[in-house]
Amino acid sequence: MPIMQVHLIAGRSEEQKARLIEALTMAAVEALDAPIESVRVLINEIPACDFGIAGQTARQRGR
Amino acid sequence: MPIMQVHLIAGRSEEQKARLIEALTMAAVEALDAPIESVRVLINEIPACDFGIAGQTARQRGR
Amino acid sequence: MPIMQVHLIAGRSEEQKARLIEALTMAAVEALDAPIESVRVLINEIPACDFGIAGQTARQRGR
Amino acid sequence: MPIMQVHLIAGRSEEQKARLIEALTMAAVEALDAPIESVRVLINEIPACDFGIAGQTARQRGR
Amino acid sequence: MPIMQVHLIAGRSEEQKARLIEALTMAAVEALDAPIESVRVLINEIPACDFGIAGQTARQRGR
Amino acid sequence: MPIMQVHLIAGRSEEQKARLIEALTMAAVEALDAPIESVRVLINEIPACDFGIAGQTARQRGR
Repeated sequence: MPIMQVHLIAGRSEEQKARLIEALTMAAVEALDAPIESVRVLINEIPACDFGIAGQTARQRGR
Repeated sequence: MPIMQVHLIAGRSEEQKARLIEALTMAAVEALDAPIESVRVLINEIPACDFGIAGQTARQRGR
Repeated sequence: MPIMQVHLIAGRSEEQKARLIEALTMAAVEALDAPIESVRVLINEIPACDFGIAGQTARQRGR
Repeated sequence: MPIMQVHLIAGRSEEQKARLIEALTMAAVEALDAPIESVRVLINEIPACDFGIAGQTARQRGR
Repeated sequence: MPIMQVHLIAGRSEEQKARLIEALTMAAVEALDAPIESVRVLINEIPACDFGIAGQTARQRGR
Repeated sequence: MPIMQVHLIAGRSEEQKARLIEALTMAAVEALDAPIESVRVLINEIPACDFGIAGQTARQRGR
């Protein structure tokens, strides 16, 4: 019953996020021998001004 | 001091979410004998393209 | 597909947590008209020394 | 390697959130003696209609 | 800068969790074209009595 | 009403965590002009074998 939350700086395409969901799901299925139907992935896109790295926002750092 | 986070596929009405907050709060108050003032509920609405089930997005699955 | 995380100060009995899971699930089913099979509840018990309220730990506050 | 998530009712300015990220980062660096480069802060702004306090939304309570 | 949290019912071996961390990291690196050094994975093992599925604990359901 | 979750590799003393809670709370109070009574800090200590950095566990990396 793995539930995964993924926190990303916003800006990925819908296609890229769909690939990420598929890839993470398959990785969990294989590593844990879990049934695929039981896997959940929740993507959390975070605006660059709300993501802090080393005390600065990702926006301030130029991302 | 229960703090609840609820992850949902986006699309609920504001009225429905207010009912959810009230219902979850009362459930916690009764099950835990907690003071109502101490309960927090944080709703996290997730776009259907960011919610993965069994390796596909909820949007791909038609939700 | 509601997924709920509940953060509590540690110390509840297993029976009380089972009642909480049942009560929160039914509240979500009714408020959201969601199928019961789709509901997940994850309880996170936090030691009193790791739960801060108003700048003090719950242990320091006597809980 | 501290990773901090901060849940706030939405409505802060970008400048205020940048100050918050800097202040939380410095607090973690000092309290934990952690290298600043290793600190992450993720701000989660929650609409007032999705933030429940004592069974009501923050919007219903007038915030 | 992907940060992943994985919520699992407790009981995996340390070796299995290390494989999961490696597999999820590689999946994120490939799907997002992210630098491997930037990836974090946080595993949260949840006791079977604290993980609710369809209103029952995983322990009650026999897992 | 700021709620902060802090994810750390396990191993800090209770005194150090209490200082962290106090420091993060004061940082949030000052940066957000929030009432101190409304601030919550939840520390989540993660075993070194469950914390992944760059595809390896913190334990594998020697932390």
